[in-house]
Amino acid sequence: MGIRVAVAGASGYAGGELLRLIAGHPEFDLVAATAHRQAGAPVTAVHPQLAGLDLTFAATDPATLADADLVFLALPHGESAALAAELPESVRVVDLGADHRLRDADAWSRYYGGPHAGAWTYGLPELPGQRAAIAGATRVANTGCYAVAITLALAPLIAVGAVAPADVVVVAASGTSGAGRAAKTHLLGSEVMGDLSPYKVGAHQHVPEIKQATGATGLSLTPVLAPMPRGILATVTAVPTGDADPRAVLADAYADAPFVHLLPEGAWPHTAATAGANSCHLQATVDVDSGRVIVVSAIDNLGKGAAGQAVQNANLMLGLPETTGLSTFGVAP
Amino acid sequence: MGIRVAVAGASGYAGGELLRLIAGHPEFDLVAATAHRQAGAPVTAVHPQLAGLDLTFAATDPATLADADLVFLALPHGESAALAAELPESVRVVDLGADHRLRDADAWSRYYGGPHAGAWTYGLPELPGQRAAIAGATRVANTGCYAVAITLALAPLIAVGAVAPADVVVVAASGTSGAGRAAKTHLLGSEVMGDLSPYKVGAHQHVPEIKQATGATGLSLTPVLAPMPRGILATVTAVPTGDADPRAVLADAYADAPFVHLLPEGAWPHTAATAGANSCHLQATVDVDSGRVIVVSAIDNLGKGAAGQAVQNANLMLGLPETTGLSTFGVAP
Amino acid sequence: MGIRVAVAGASGYAGGELLRLIAGHPEFDLVAATAHRQAGAPVTAVHPQLAGLDLTFAATDPATLADADLVFLALPHGESAALAAELPESVRVVDLGADHRLRDADAWSRYYGGPHAGAWTYGLPELPGQRAAIAGATRVANTGCYAVAITLALAPLIAVGAVAPADVVVVAASGTSGAGRAAKTHLLGSEVMGDLSPYKVGAHQHVPEIKQATGATGLSLTPVLAPMPRGILATVTAVPTGDADPRAVLADAYADAPFVHLLPEGAWPHTAATAGANSCHLQATVDVDSGRVIVVSAIDNLGKGAAGQAVQNANLMLGLPETTGLSTFGVAP
Amino acid sequence: MGIRVAVAGASGYAGGELLRLIAGHPEFDLVAATAHRQAGAPVTAVHPQLAGLDLTFAATDPATLADADLVFLALPHGESAALAAELPESVRVVDLGADHRLRDADAWSRYYGGPHAGAWTYGLPELPGQRAAIAGATRVANTGCYAVAITLALAPLIAVGAVAPADVVVVAASGTSGAGRAAKTHLLGSEVMGDLSPYKVGAHQHVPEIKQATGATGLSLTPVLAPMPRGILATVTAVPTGDADPRAVLADAYADAPFVHLLPEGAWPHTAATAGANSCHLQATVDVDSGRVIVVSAIDNLGKGAAGQAVQNANLMLGLPETTGLSTFGVAP
Repeated sequence: MGIRVAVAGASGYAGGELLRLIAGHPEFDLVAATAHRQAGAPVTAVHPQLAGLDLTFAATDPATLADADLVFLALPHGESAALAAELPESVRVVDLGADHRLRDADAWSRYYGGPHAGAWTYGLPELPGQRAAIAGATRVANTGCYAVAITLALAPLIAVGAVAPADVVVVAASGTSGAGRAAKTHLLGSEVMGDLSPYKVGAHQHVPEIKQATGATGLSLTPVLAPMPRGILATVTAVPTGDADPRAVLADAYADAPFVHLLPEGAWPHTAATAGANSCHLQATVDVDSGRVIVVSAIDNLGKGAAGQAVQNANLMLGLPETTGLSTFGVAP
Repeated sequence: MGIRVAVAGASGYAGGELLRLIAGHPEFDLVAATAHRQAGAPVTAVHPQLAGLDLTFAATDPATLADADLVFLALPHGESAALAAELPESVRVVDLGADHRLRDADAWSRYYGGPHAGAWTYGLPELPGQRAAIAGATRVANTGCYAVAITLALAPLIAVGAVAPADVVVVAASGTSGAGRAAKTHLLGSEVMGDLSPYKVGAHQHVPEIKQATGATGLSLTPVLAPMPRGILATVTAVPTGDADPRAVLADAYADAPFVHLLPEGAWPHTAATAGANSCHLQATVDVDSGRVIVVSAIDNLGKGAAGQAVQNANLMLGLPETTGLSTFGVAP
Repeated sequence: MGIRVAVAGASGYAGGELLRLIAGHPEFDLVAATAHRQAGAPVTAVHPQLAGLDLTFAATDPATLADADLVFLALPHGESAALAAELPESVRVVDLGADHRLRDADAWSRYYGGPHAGAWTYGLPELPGQRAAIAGATRVANTGCYAVAITLALAPLIAVGAVAPADVVVVAASGTSGAGRAAKTHLLGSEVMGDLSPYKVGAHQHVPEIKQATGATGLSLTPVLAPMPRGILATVTAVPTGDADPRAVLADAYADAPFVHLLPEGAWPHTAATAGANSCHLQATVDVDSGRVIVVSAIDNLGKGAAGQAVQNANLMLGLPETTGLSTFGVAP
Repeated sequence: MGIRVAVAGASGYAGGELLRLIAGHPEFDLVAATAHRQAGAPVTAVHPQLAGLDLTFAATDPATLADADLVFLALPHGESAALAAELPESVRVVDLGADHRLRDADAWSRYYGGPHAGAWTYGLPELPGQRAAIAGATRVANTGCYAVAITLALAPLIAVGAVAPADVVVVAASGTSGAGRAAKTHLLGSEVMGDLSPYKVGAHQHVPEIKQATGATGLSLTPVLAPMPRGILATVTAVPTGDADPRAVLADAYADAPFVHLLPEGAWPHTAATAGANSCHLQATVDVDSGRVIVVSAIDNLGKGAAGQAVQNANLMLGLPETTGLSTFGVAP
């Protein structure tokens, strides 16, 4: 008899990836997959990649979810706080949404609006001390997909004082699944194939989370939609404060992190290598012309950026080895 | 102590996928990955998606391979026969190449040239009686990627006499990884993105294999290169001989096949749903205008079309459950 | 002072391509672009590729359109007949929709439903006698995009009796712009990239038009959605009646057609080579195994399949050289 | 009788686009297209999108080229200087390569190696005074594709002192045609589709050209290969020196530039909108968090980034209107 897990909001892309990972997890039993509109429909009608999974979407009902040992919330931003409040404390919860990430209520109001639901334990195990914090928590807020890619690249450099926190410039491109499964014209295949398009330039709602997680005090983020289903490539530049070798700092920070790979010198991360996996690939250098430190990170936005990370957090919360049911190897080409 | 497996020709796309599957297989220990030109290089220099796999390509030497319990040959057509001949009978071999697929030496000479190496047990477990034959064999010839998709769609219909074997028309489109990893201008991203291009029209070397495997006596195959890394979509049309329901025939044929999914009526296979998996999705109907039976099948050419199938065959040869270390769930979107 | 042209339904993909072609046409003055929902919005808000075109969408009002010498109707199927009925006979009309293509009212009712608006002159100038018919018409029904690709490949062979009309098998794959600009989940970039998916298998509404245009009496059409914005690749197979060389038949049929190119022997059409152009590329062979004739054609579904063809028809109706303002050269890679 | 133009190096992607533009140019007669290896082959064997162009590649021979009024050199870097030296001064030359762009011989040696061929008139008409300089020149060095996108975004801001030249951070992603037509494994479709990969991070050979053209004194450039055939999206960030509105500066700089479009507020450039066109789309804002100026520009790397720009320069050199034979409208979707 395994650990009973449920997914709320299982009809979206992160929800589908969670179902795939749970189905392959040796310790998890999937007891419910809920969805607002698709309640009553076979899961495979929405996620044909799960052909053979004999399951029907349930309505998103707290009573259904309360029956599980652990619940993943893969709901739109603003919807998970209300649902989580109805779940008993004995049920462990990993929230893939933004509702419980920010400690700063003002930042929440400014970017998301509405009342601030309060911060939960932040779900990025690779941050110092965070692995233990997650292991002891019953409520964990999964890190946002852009924040994962950028924080893993930047946080150790700021933490050791190797770069200045006040002047960080990031350009990060994401595959389209990061924008969700709702039908919108600008996300049509006809629009996105062959196209790169920036969005929310100069004022992205993920900036407060990234600053909180990295320690950056001045951050310019330009997100770009890229013509691929999955993947985030983040290019992070910052001003070095001294002569610290950024590669050495990163190597030290992630010596014991099973999912973070600092690539050999000369090899640069690319997104396809992380597809379907829970891994993050990193590389760093110092720009010969500007002297800036450049760190590039690649993740699968649905993997380490969402569902993979959520399973990693769940493993820690449940006392399982961090890597249970997760792969570090990408599906490529 | 697991079963010792080796991969010869591990630097190609099928080889890389084999390494990924072997690394995740609970019973296999990877003891060698050989490659002609990359001998001495880290595996991750060629396959960055395997970051974390600490292994160096060995030279393709029979002595190295003879040390394994089972060897996968993922070599170019025409190279595996010579190598296989140097391996002791005690070493089980799965050949992903074409060398040992054809029983007809004339057909071999006509399409491939050179001497015919002789046929091995044909590695498509879903054919009648073939699961047992593979379980008893020490040498198995993996089915070609197009042949998998087409045979699973067509063979049961011919076997029960539901369609005429003499007039089968197939158009099958493949992702670019099916064309291999050798650098050729017509396979450049600039050429293939946004493009569909037929090739070897009217005379494809896979036709004899498909006829042998399906029982078709007249077959027109038009292969098309499609702008995606993975996946084969085969559209098979044939003339019905009576009123047999093609869906019923397929449902019956694959009732016990864990990797073949006949989709619910109205749902049609699409390739992305099989990416990274060992599954084949099928659907069939009768054309209202022409009366032809149309069967569509989708596979991942590197999964059920190559590496996944090879592991499935290896499992059978080694007495393991057929599904060990394989997934039926695709990585999508 | 040029010829005054207007576009109704200018906010869709075919509409946008029409605006691009009209803007570059040496004899046309664009006097109105109408759109239902976007009335009042700048054209460039919907079609950013037309940056610099200083024009606002008008409401789709017959009075606005009646002021033009020629009107292109790029409306959803079923909407153009009503609008056309309100335009004076003195205004020439090219309808890109399906409303006036079919001569058979029963076929219309069966596939589209609703009353049959009656057939107009069929807008495929490359059919025998059709160039003159179009030149003398004031109402022309543009050929559907699949029908263009298939008819140009097949009609001459049936016309000369080189193939049997009763057993034609077609698999045709289209880029996503053929499915229009309405936001639908299955057309999202996340869904279509990396994917091939058949649709309306066994019963496609374009079959009656294709039979009417080609003379085929038995036709199996399997349409496939392909991961590219533009392009149709049609693979047409038929049974030869004798020894006629299909290349010779096609060469003869299109000797004077400026937009149809029979490629040199050994070269096969591919869609990217026709992107942005009004051309159709053709190649034919006889399958060595089945003896079937295989003809492959490639077009840009928005070019020769829609907007380019419409301009070609308009040129003929207005007494201009057929090629005015149109290119035979694709934008590739 | 038109102006006689020739293309040397016509078998590459920029060469093919030049042939397409020349074929549609009302004043140009194409008298020769030369290619090293393909000499003697039909142009359409290499560029099937030009089906109908009845021309054979000539060998790259100065005597052949000297017969033209104007020669476009689309050769690999390092090859055009030697060829140009053999052409009489009476033949106008536009060099699409890097050989004559840099005024600083040291920078040339550092990044390209070999002797410095000396700088020609720099072919970016939108720079102050440059339109007249080009009109008076017989030798013009086309701007590099990255340099076009970045310079148009940045140069006016530095010129008026609105941003600090010493701290510019650029991340620029390019479609694969920018990497050329040589067959390389990392450019295969299987590798690039679904993938974003940075390259030459921290030390790109285009930095000296960009600094020369923009006036930047400290520049960090991270180039990224994107999964699309064409297009460059450059994200340029810089530190403002005061309160100047970056949009107002750009609007003023390009008031008379027919190919540069500052988009309406809120609309951001995306690459697909410029495909096949000679246009550059721009937008700018000030980041609310960091206070940095962010300018994004989009071009077609083969259009305004190469062949389109070359024709624009040729028009100016020949006294034709700058826009002759060029389109500002992209082929989209």
